[in-house]
Amino acid sequence: MIRADFALRHAGQLATMVPAAGDPLGRIRDGALAAREGRVVWIGEDRELESQVTLDGDLLDTQGACVIPGLVDAHTHPVFAGSRADEFAERASGVPYAVQQSEERGIARTVRATREADEPTLLALAQARANRFLANGTTTIEAKTGYGLDLDNEAKLLDVLRKLAGRTPLRVVPTFLGAHVPPPGIDRDLYVRSLIDEMLPAFRPWADFCDAWCEAPAFTAKETRAILTRARSLGYGLRVHAAQLAPGEGPDIAAALEARSADHLEFATPAQIRALAKAGTVAVLCPGANFTTHGPRPPIDAMRQATLPMAIASDLNPGTSNSESLPHAMSLACVQWGMTPVEVLLGATVHAARSLKLDGVAGCLQVGSFADCAILDVETPEAIPYYVGVNRVIATVAGGVTWQPS
Amino acid sequence: MIRADFALRHAGQLATMVPAAGDPLGRIRDGALAAREGRVVWIGEDRELESQVTLDGDLLDTQGACVIPGLVDAHTHPVFAGSRADEFAERASGVPYAVQQSEERGIARTVRATREADEPTLLALAQARANRFLANGTTTIEAKTGYGLDLDNEAKLLDVLRKLAGRTPLRVVPTFLGAHVPPPGIDRDLYVRSLIDEMLPAFRPWADFCDAWCEAPAFTAKETRAILTRARSLGYGLRVHAAQLAPGEGPDIAAALEARSADHLEFATPAQIRALAKAGTVAVLCPGANFTTHGPRPPIDAMRQATLPMAIASDLNPGTSNSESLPHAMSLACVQWGMTPVEVLLGATVHAARSLKLDGVAGCLQVGSFADCAILDVETPEAIPYYVGVNRVIATVAGGVTWQPS
Repeated sequence: MIRADFALRHAGQLATMVPAAGDPLGRIRDGALAAREGRVVWIGEDRELESQVTLDGDLLDTQGACVIPGLVDAHTHPVFAGSRADEFAERASGVPYAVQQSEERGIARTVRATREADEPTLLALAQARANRFLANGTTTIEAKTGYGLDLDNEAKLLDVLRKLAGRTPLRVVPTFLGAHVPPPGIDRDLYVRSLIDEMLPAFRPWADFCDAWCEAPAFTAKETRAILTRARSLGYGLRVHAAQLAPGEGPDIAAALEARSADHLEFATPAQIRALAKAGTVAVLCPGANFTTHGPRPPIDAMRQATLPMAIASDLNPGTSNSESLPHAMSLACVQWGMTPVEVLLGATVHAARSLKLDGVAGCLQVGSFADCAILDVETPEAIPYYVGVNRVIATVAGGVTWQPS
Repeated sequence: MIRADFALRHAGQLATMVPAAGDPLGRIRDGALAAREGRVVWIGEDRELESQVTLDGDLLDTQGACVIPGLVDAHTHPVFAGSRADEFAERASGVPYAVQQSEERGIARTVRATREADEPTLLALAQARANRFLANGTTTIEAKTGYGLDLDNEAKLLDVLRKLAGRTPLRVVPTFLGAHVPPPGIDRDLYVRSLIDEMLPAFRPWADFCDAWCEAPAFTAKETRAILTRARSLGYGLRVHAAQLAPGEGPDIAAALEARSADHLEFATPAQIRALAKAGTVAVLCPGANFTTHGPRPPIDAMRQATLPMAIASDLNPGTSNSESLPHAMSLACVQWGMTPVEVLLGATVHAARSLKLDGVAGCLQVGSFADCAILDVETPEAIPYYVGVNRVIATVAGGVTWQPS
């Protein structure tokens, strides 16, 4: 008998995301799952649970609901203060996002508010966001800094992320995004030098990934290459904000440096997409930001042709996507971009996990994986995006524990 | 002293929706409100509450959150069984909505599933939907039948609505929509005769409004005129599904018969819009359906010029808008159509209430109005649509009682 301290039973459909004959979602009907110390120890049909598992702990009867792996959000900016609601309204009235970037507004405005906020305030804000991620079925997030933009303030944000991870069952994968935009009031060459010589070495213990935005409002190709090359030599995994607003070299740099992810990619070329696929990079698509900035459809068809894995992310941030809901991002990707429900389901689980080097442990359910699940009031996993803008998550399990809002 | 059995205090901003000097939302900063027997008896600044009101009942401290009138959803189809998730996915892949309407699919498919479902099943489904409306800040819905489409089954749906109203604090305004589409398997002239001669007279005690869909997949202008003229003579208020998929006479009929609402209106002409404004009709816009069917932008600018009141509705239905969230519909209207936050706030409160003949009692907060409120974790009421696809409602008050999920 297998010993377990948590079990879940009577999942009408349990999507393992481990492809099985004819089913890319590897679903088990009337499924069950058992876990010990946060990891799955058994998974199968409910009628076999009792004969194979000895349970000493909580039993969750999902009463026919759908169970999927806890969602994995591969692109979020969860540590910030201040509001940019007026900029959202302005964009609705036709002002382009790029025009909103100045030393007073746009990202710079969030940087100012975030610098002014003390650590307890930022931690409380981030924790409220963690609760909303969990409430919407997400159990793992990639979490970027990038609103500090100097040594002390970026350190403060990394500290908030470290403390957040200790206070929430949400898994928090920290990414250093000092190269978000050049901060106001400092020579950009000086800032790039500080990134390369001071921040990157100092922050290596606190961040798994380094990210940079390679685009006109942010960093040049040359700067991006210098920053990410240094990050790579220090052992960071790499991510790149690339080709969101215009064509550019971001995707080439991501491919050349074998970045784990290239994000946004609205303006990536077919050749760049092929290069990303060859490099083992994951395309992290951000439908929420695309939606509120009226961006063009990313080259989904070229990505399909190149078999470039497409992750779907919330891109939670105060400028372009103020939402912790991956199911909503999935709906947007289906409606706006014509992605299929299966594509967006894989995008918010396995492909997202791959971009975070969590292949096989997050975004799927199998023996040895995290016991992270979202339990949803939906008829099939494919129906998740059909419920648009309304939360159908009944419960979230993280590490074999049913989450309750803190 | 004013006696009250409920009070709410410390609303950071309390939007009354009663226009005040320079503020269309009539907001009170650090506001408070007191109610007795479900109606507002006092509203003002928090610092005046204690000196003016004697409270014998619940006190809700909103701790600086925003308080707005409970949202009013002027167009919903909440009584149905079955799923059309596959049709949602199909549309994402490019199949037009109109092509999906047949005797086997589209609305006809929901009619079949709804006829097959017994009343307790339909009531349980509707009650789950009522809970989701309330969870997302809505306290009043217009609720259509229209998936029965014969005497017995439409009676069953009206009965479900009547029972639902007794089991939820959500206010349910029933609309008879026998003229949704001509049902399969019966001669359409016979069906129209049955509507006019049997159903309309029989159902008058159970429905406040009568609605008809005047459009190619549904009823002709002549049929619509006959049905609604009869309904009017019986004392129903009128609503019309009009010009959603193509230009047509629907808006003209709505104006000529002084309908309370003309709904969808993507293809209404400027002349029709002026006629609707003159007739005192409210335009009930449905951004959720527009979104998933890839409809064109409704003629918002012409509506503004004509000062035609624009309500925003969820259009909850299993085909085109599977969502009980008005905040989400408001986000869509801002992002997709360029409506302003103030326009969508008024659209989901005062204008929606006007279309339901609830002017002054629902969708606003003043002495004598329903004590229905949504309490939101947002910085200002205008920020509500800025949070896209994620529920920021902290609590919902209906009739002076804080709602708890049933």
